[in-house]
Amino acid sequence: MLNFEFKNPTKIIFGKNTIQQLPNQLPSDAKVLLIFGGGSIKKNGIYDEVKAALANFEVFEFGGIPANPEYEILVQALEIIKKENITFLLAVGGGSVIDGTKFLSSATLFSGDNPWDILEKGIRTDVGLPFGTILTLPATGSEMNSGAVISRRSTQQKLGMGGPGLFPQFSILDPKVIQSIPKNQIANGIVDAFTHVLEQYMTYPTHANLQDRFAESILQTLLEVGPIVQENPFYYEAAADFMWSCTMALNGLIQKGVPTDWAVHAIGHELTVFFGIDHARTLAIIAPSHYRYNFEAKKAKLAQCAERVFNIHTGSIEEKAVACIEQFEQFFHKLGIQTKLSEYTEDYLGTAERIEARFTERGMLGLGEHKNIAPSDVRQIVSMSY
Amino acid sequence: MLNFEFKNPTKIIFGKNTIQQLPNQLPSDAKVLLIFGGGSIKKNGIYDEVKAALANFEVFEFGGIPANPEYEILVQALEIIKKENITFLLAVGGGSVIDGTKFLSSATLFSGDNPWDILEKGIRTDVGLPFGTILTLPATGSEMNSGAVISRRSTQQKLGMGGPGLFPQFSILDPKVIQSIPKNQIANGIVDAFTHVLEQYMTYPTHANLQDRFAESILQTLLEVGPIVQENPFYYEAAADFMWSCTMALNGLIQKGVPTDWAVHAIGHELTVFFGIDHARTLAIIAPSHYRYNFEAKKAKLAQCAERVFNIHTGSIEEKAVACIEQFEQFFHKLGIQTKLSEYTEDYLGTAERIEARFTERGMLGLGEHKNIAPSDVRQIVSMSY
Repeated sequence: MLNFEFKNPTKIIFGKNTIQQLPNQLPSDAKVLLIFGGGSIKKNGIYDEVKAALANFEVFEFGGIPANPEYEILVQALEIIKKENITFLLAVGGGSVIDGTKFLSSATLFSGDNPWDILEKGIRTDVGLPFGTILTLPATGSEMNSGAVISRRSTQQKLGMGGPGLFPQFSILDPKVIQSIPKNQIANGIVDAFTHVLEQYMTYPTHANLQDRFAESILQTLLEVGPIVQENPFYYEAAADFMWSCTMALNGLIQKGVPTDWAVHAIGHELTVFFGIDHARTLAIIAPSHYRYNFEAKKAKLAQCAERVFNIHTGSIEEKAVACIEQFEQFFHKLGIQTKLSEYTEDYLGTAERIEARFTERGMLGLGEHKNIAPSDVRQIVSMSY
Repeated sequence: MLNFEFKNPTKIIFGKNTIQQLPNQLPSDAKVLLIFGGGSIKKNGIYDEVKAALANFEVFEFGGIPANPEYEILVQALEIIKKENITFLLAVGGGSVIDGTKFLSSATLFSGDNPWDILEKGIRTDVGLPFGTILTLPATGSEMNSGAVISRRSTQQKLGMGGPGLFPQFSILDPKVIQSIPKNQIANGIVDAFTHVLEQYMTYPTHANLQDRFAESILQTLLEVGPIVQENPFYYEAAADFMWSCTMALNGLIQKGVPTDWAVHAIGHELTVFFGIDHARTLAIIAPSHYRYNFEAKKAKLAQCAERVFNIHTGSIEEKAVACIEQFEQFFHKLGIQTKLSEYTEDYLGTAERIEARFTERGMLGLGEHKNIAPSDVRQIVSMSY
């Protein structure tokens, strides 16, 4: 086990009808900016429920945060925060709205001239404007971690940020919100959380037995309840398992003491930038090729996953490892998620070379748990994903 | 899944040589009271290491906290804290020292006249004097939770206390401390953590799949590495798994959203009060009888545990459940822990009636996840443990 530090101060309020508890979580004199996305919360009743809970607070609103939250839009919200002296941010939405809110939390207290520097120069946020979240789409785990990914349309960049000041003060998780999520977005959430676990688990054995088993527990639970939730989002118990699994997949716990990969995300982000493919789907496209290309480095853990998660106990290490990757693909397909780039765009030729060029230009030093995946390796992984 | 709230702000610093990081965790002007137990830290070098790390701080000391930390001794430390205007408590020890420190954290800021009221009247601690811990004996999980159990010799009481103000600011966990722990104390730690998991898991199925799997993960890891650590405490990787498993067994995570039992602890505490039997050993005495006596209520979960943890896939639910209890006993025996009261004392006759009388006198309303285990049931459980 590697040395590690772990601290996660976010308060989780989980369960049926928990949005009602919102007023107790806010400072009584809070001046709140309610931040949301494309307006689905106005159709499914969550907006009304939140507004009712905020009846005794001064509330401003900023809607329209897009998937892959865009810098150009967020700076408009930043102006409102400063002009109105907002003291508390409330994100009501999925990972994009929460990530956008984290950027605003940081940017509000940022002392520099250009808030984009937080992302471009990798400035860590030690203190941010306090914020809470009401999660409407389980997937990213952003509701219980201190990271965010922000896109900038004008420069085709998608960059990460974070720091201990960016944990939500609280996050309210009511599994009933899942009832109104479209099937394809539920599938995205399942694949996103599943791949989050893989990025922290599918590396090489390091005698971190408890972390391995926790990771396998999340994979098993998603495999079990994912298709049930997609089929029947009104089945509360399955929705609750799904929602809590997504949070636990990326709240920091399972990555502590073990090597982590994150190459799938780094490459997948490029596909979103180029083609606008949903984040989760880019992961489903890249992960299988990544594991096949780096097979020697990952086969021990792939075989362990085959045994413990998929109950595959026959064959050699290599055969089990191959079967494990096939199981991943079958699971994604079962959810209606395609795993080849050509299934998303006809314009895929040349993508591998474009991504290689961008990674080279960016001076990328090497991806993956061994930091040895060069831009030329990325080219081959992407080619294998066509 | 039941509704729940979860917040655990303790910072964990885990790994080799992490005691060196102590100075960075303390306020620079901290006036520290170093709290420890019977002096083993002076023999194994941990005391010297801590003192070296504290070279630039004003440090007072209070040693001699006994196992089952006693109120009568703790109030002596309280006098020092008040007289010297101590601003930070540092517990260096196992669960007893940490629990004692939590009492002191609470009692220092307690506004009432009699600090025993915190326990006797069940007063919740919202704000305590800041404290950190350096864990020297993995077992209780006290290093990452906000609860404590304090004994009072004069009244033969052993009572719990807690509250959000009693999370350690930080806990330093260096698995190398395990090298100097006697084998019987390592066994105690394994059984204590194992039983903590059982108290939160061995109830009835509630469709909390992830929590179940996390609980099973901890049991599996303890089963796997426990005997290895006991045999060879110098095997770092096993020691690290053991240490992290003990913390995760009682940091609140696996109890969220599920019913919990805690009857084994409630009954076991009485055996410690009467006979001075080590806490963990009282759990090993009571747990098997408790599960046999409440077999109908628990057989579904016992059978699930048999299948998932012990790979027992043949037989009826009842047969698997019986086999599971036997597996628990075998594990305890393998660690050198006896599971019958008569193996600890010749003076056991009448114990069941004495405990029944004490529970009746205390007005106990019912133990267990269904709150339906009456004092007369406790009598029978204890009788079965002779």
